[in-house]
Amino acid sequence: MTDTLASPPLFLEDLYLGQHFSSGSQEVTAEAIKTFAKAFDPQPFHTDEAAAENTFFAGLAASGWHVAALTMKLLVGERAFIANGIVGAGGEISWPRPTRPGDILSVDSEVTEIAPSRSRPDRGIVTLRSETRNQRGEIAQVLTSKLVVMRRVGGLP
Amino acid sequence: MTDTLASPPLFLEDLYLGQHFSSGSQEVTAEAIKTFAKAFDPQPFHTDEAAAENTFFAGLAASGWHVAALTMKLLVGERAFIANGIVGAGGEISWPRPTRPGDILSVDSEVTEIAPSRSRPDRGIVTLRSETRNQRGEIAQVLTSKLVVMRRVGGLP
Repeated sequence: MTDTLASPPLFLEDLYLGQHFSSGSQEVTAEAIKTFAKAFDPQPFHTDEAAAENTFFAGLAASGWHVAALTMKLLVGERAFIANGIVGAGGEISWPRPTRPGDILSVDSEVTEIAPSRSRPDRGIVTLRSETRNQRGEIAQVLTSKLVVMRRVGGLP
Repeated sequence: MTDTLASPPLFLEDLYLGQHFSSGSQEVTAEAIKTFAKAFDPQPFHTDEAAAENTFFAGLAASGWHVAALTMKLLVGERAFIANGIVGAGGEISWPRPTRPGDILSVDSEVTEIAPSRSRPDRGIVTLRSETRNQRGEIAQVLTSKLVVMRRVGGLP
């Protein structure tokens, strides 16, 4: 079964193992890559096409943190699908390949674990595995995040 | 022994277990929190002081990805301390507490593992544990990243 990010905001009780969420898509332009990098990751392979040629990436590539930020944008969409918002306590992230100018990213997410909080009965920790793929279906990023999700009863609005 | 981010660019041969790097600092303004969030994480607790009051965060808080991006900016500094650049293959990230408007972040990093690549003799994978702290010394983020670091001999420029 596949839910979409347009589903009504969900509480802990609404989530189940294997639940899927699919995002919209977002093109990554050279301009966006350079703008993000100048602000947050000013290394030649992220900021300048010519300088990027003789680097590890052999050409302009998006900062991994730019890909992570775009993944978050796609996950949130028009409105977060979790009622209390998409609140990450942390997670694991990897970038199997560079994201290049012109790549179009989209995110597929799956609920892989649901754990009630031991100390706080009004919430749980949900593990969401999110694969960010480009227009060729290649995986640009894998993020396994631990989300704080409130219960409907006793949860925040 | 404490190295600083102003050290000469380093190759794999120059790194050792326990090596430390300390960054400069960066204030996180409310304006910067909202600007980042509108672009990448448009949820009320990141975009609007008033709307943030009745949310999980009970007040404006920076997106975790904003904290991650600022951590990268602080790690890179004026020039990356790794000769081939700070190139992350992935890692683990956690945000033990929110980052608030006016917080001043800085990063302390330590080399915790050095592993030669099995398949590619010109490089290794270095694990760098980076703690991002605010002006009260509280940990805002812990990032354990796997960096690709080239050897001096046979490495890229």
